[in-house]
Amino acid sequence: MASKKILLIGAGRSSNVLISFLLQNKSKENWELTFADANMETLKSKVSSKDAHLVTLDVNNNEACAELVKAADIVISMVPAFLHMYVARNCVKYGKNMVTASYVSEDMQQLDKEAKDKGVLLLNEIGLDPGLDHLSAMKIIDSLRDAGAEMLNFESFAGGLLAPESEKDNPWKYKFTWNPRNVVLAGQGTVKFIQEDRYKYIPYHRLFRRTEIIDIEGFGRFEGYPNRDSLKYIDAYNLRGIPTIFRGTLRRPGYCRAWNAFVQLGATDDSYKIEDSENMTYRQFINSFLSYNPTDSVELKLMHYLHLDQDSDVMEKLEWLGVFSDKKVGLKNATPAQILQKILEDKWSLDPDDKDMIVMWHQFIYNLNGKKERRTSSMVVTGEDTEKTAMAKTVGLPVGIATQLILRGEINDTGVKIPTKKSIYEPVLAVLEAYGIQFNETTEDWV
Amino acid sequence: MASKKILLIGAGRSSNVLISFLLQNKSKENWELTFADANMETLKSKVSSKDAHLVTLDVNNNEACAELVKAADIVISMVPAFLHMYVARNCVKYGKNMVTASYVSEDMQQLDKEAKDKGVLLLNEIGLDPGLDHLSAMKIIDSLRDAGAEMLNFESFAGGLLAPESEKDNPWKYKFTWNPRNVVLAGQGTVKFIQEDRYKYIPYHRLFRRTEIIDIEGFGRFEGYPNRDSLKYIDAYNLRGIPTIFRGTLRRPGYCRAWNAFVQLGATDDSYKIEDSENMTYRQFINSFLSYNPTDSVELKLMHYLHLDQDSDVMEKLEWLGVFSDKKVGLKNATPAQILQKILEDKWSLDPDDKDMIVMWHQFIYNLNGKKERRTSSMVVTGEDTEKTAMAKTVGLPVGIATQLILRGEINDTGVKIPTKKSIYEPVLAVLEAYGIQFNETTEDWV
Repeated sequence: MASKKILLIGAGRSSNVLISFLLQNKSKENWELTFADANMETLKSKVSSKDAHLVTLDVNNNEACAELVKAADIVISMVPAFLHMYVARNCVKYGKNMVTASYVSEDMQQLDKEAKDKGVLLLNEIGLDPGLDHLSAMKIIDSLRDAGAEMLNFESFAGGLLAPESEKDNPWKYKFTWNPRNVVLAGQGTVKFIQEDRYKYIPYHRLFRRTEIIDIEGFGRFEGYPNRDSLKYIDAYNLRGIPTIFRGTLRRPGYCRAWNAFVQLGATDDSYKIEDSENMTYRQFINSFLSYNPTDSVELKLMHYLHLDQDSDVMEKLEWLGVFSDKKVGLKNATPAQILQKILEDKWSLDPDDKDMIVMWHQFIYNLNGKKERRTSSMVVTGEDTEKTAMAKTVGLPVGIATQLILRGEINDTGVKIPTKKSIYEPVLAVLEAYGIQFNETTEDWV
Repeated sequence: MASKKILLIGAGRSSNVLISFLLQNKSKENWELTFADANMETLKSKVSSKDAHLVTLDVNNNEACAELVKAADIVISMVPAFLHMYVARNCVKYGKNMVTASYVSEDMQQLDKEAKDKGVLLLNEIGLDPGLDHLSAMKIIDSLRDAGAEMLNFESFAGGLLAPESEKDNPWKYKFTWNPRNVVLAGQGTVKFIQEDRYKYIPYHRLFRRTEIIDIEGFGRFEGYPNRDSLKYIDAYNLRGIPTIFRGTLRRPGYCRAWNAFVQLGATDDSYKIEDSENMTYRQFINSFLSYNPTDSVELKLMHYLHLDQDSDVMEKLEWLGVFSDKKVGLKNATPAQILQKILEDKWSLDPDDKDMIVMWHQFIYNLNGKKERRTSSMVVTGEDTEKTAMAKTVGLPVGIATQLILRGEINDTGVKIPTKKSIYEPVLAVLEAYGIQFNETTEDWV
């Protein structure tokens, strides 16, 4: 059997486990691997040049990108989302299948017809979220639909958190395990969802007080705040007419109430720059959102403004972060959101011995044979260390497995796709189980 | 003396008093008047064709606009702000002075050099706000500066309200006396100001709880919420280095606390469209921002969400507006802000016997001869009826008087200007007094 040539573009943090997967399966599957990244140092720190061709690539350099794509049998694009199109256009042009973990952009969607004409599959949204959510939810939705169930309720939550052993001495029970900027800006805009056939809207400044509590056996209690995008899943999952659909993000209880303090202050705003941010202290940053008073402390003004008790959990969390300290911000022309991110990074960066944890949870309520039932499906994955994180596993393994299955001919499709079809989610979920990523399902009567 | 030809473009509500002013002074000043508007019916309802040439004009029709400008000695542009440039370009081209009550746009500012080269004056911001605020504030700032005062504090508030006799039986003590859409969207974005040398920032969702109380002798108590644009007045008024500068909008006490209910719900959002808004009731509109519950009333859910007592002033105001009624919205594809405006218009439209009131108030605190003093300046104007409103007076009279003074040669200037120079504000303020528009100043020691 001739060897298959895999081109991976992008070797950042989220590719760590994917790279291991590719190296582990290389001989058995007779793969030839080429890893390309903008930074050769990054590549060399992860892979020996004995095991793979290592190439420096600026994806914007279309000639260089095209050369690499032409020489491959399949392309995995793990570059930042806005760069995928440079890769995708070459894949279609040269007739190569492609796999990404990112949302399908409008530009990507427009390649659908051309990809089909060329017999090319552009498989997107097969990482964690989007990715594992599609696989696991569609498996249940299809099976319930096949059994003749009428869907009443679909709620789905996911979160990138700390493993329990890394939560201690941290009142937020949270650190950045992913792009910090996205965490600071999370939820901005208006949240829309459907509850009991009624459209519901939540403005950003109310979001972190509209949480739900989720218990997951063996892992305790979580709270979820609503995501902005629940409505688009109606069509993606073919759930038109469902009375309730709701997607959210998981945190440990108490996080949202404390985060709300930053939202209320205006400290997550990314739309304007703070005057002389460079020379401002953390304390002055907080004070810039509070009324002037010649004698009252920043702490007292904040507690009064947000109706917080001195001994409240929220004040404990804020003090733990050091937001009242005289440390300099040191960022020029920064927005409030950028300054807040800087402050949080002091305490929310992973220590060398920290482990992360990914939690995903779905709930389906439905009528089946005249009875109301509820099915839940949950997945918890913990990281091994700061390299092989739960995030890197849950993003990288579905991508790697999908690539393997496409090369083997076990996934056969063309056009721009996401993994909501049985022919894709079923084989990927089966292999994931062998890697310890599995969903625990429960079914119970519902009143 | 040859007659002077005045061209007024735009005869909407805010031109009513301006038109009367022009007609009253026509013979004495030997003016020839041409009034142009997109709607001939509007013109005919206000002016007899014996008194002025009445012309239908679409300002976008550049040829027609140019013909009219060419024939005039001076042009008054009272069209919506985004249309001024069509008029201004012709004024510069044909060497005609121009007067407007609108903010100087960037496009307008770029005409400055060309206007100067041609010896043309484009005088903007000479209505109410902007307008009377510049005239009255600069008069005091210049006189204090001439006396050698060091400025410590400048606060300035203005509001379009109801005359006291029209406030009764209206718990908001407010109706729309100006563009309703601007009232609904007021304050969106981030407010910035300087207090005791510290930059302060207030996010929109906190704005209506950060009010100040202002008492004006003879007219009672008002509350002011901060405007977005305080900082730009530092340069306009040459106040660089002033420790406190703050501008705001006046309402009667209690308005802001109740308006905040709409802000908290998200009902003033103009960034997305509500599903099936046409068939929604007012009650369902409010409910769309509240959690689902099969039995609790919308009223109870709202009170709980916003921490309101059943017998609170806020609930009284909301109930008075009819927001809990089953009346249909009847607007297709409407944003929350558009729906809210529709609901408010039911109760906040002026009745035939309603009168409006304009209030403006400045405060200056300064060191003079080793002593701290405070000077206040206030103006209150009430409307005569729903045509000769206080709004129409305070916008139209400064525009009309400036036009008169330019034609007489008593205002002599060129380029793009706002009335912050003594040579402009002094003569205009003097004539305004004769029309009953005057500022009452008080000076007191300040501790």
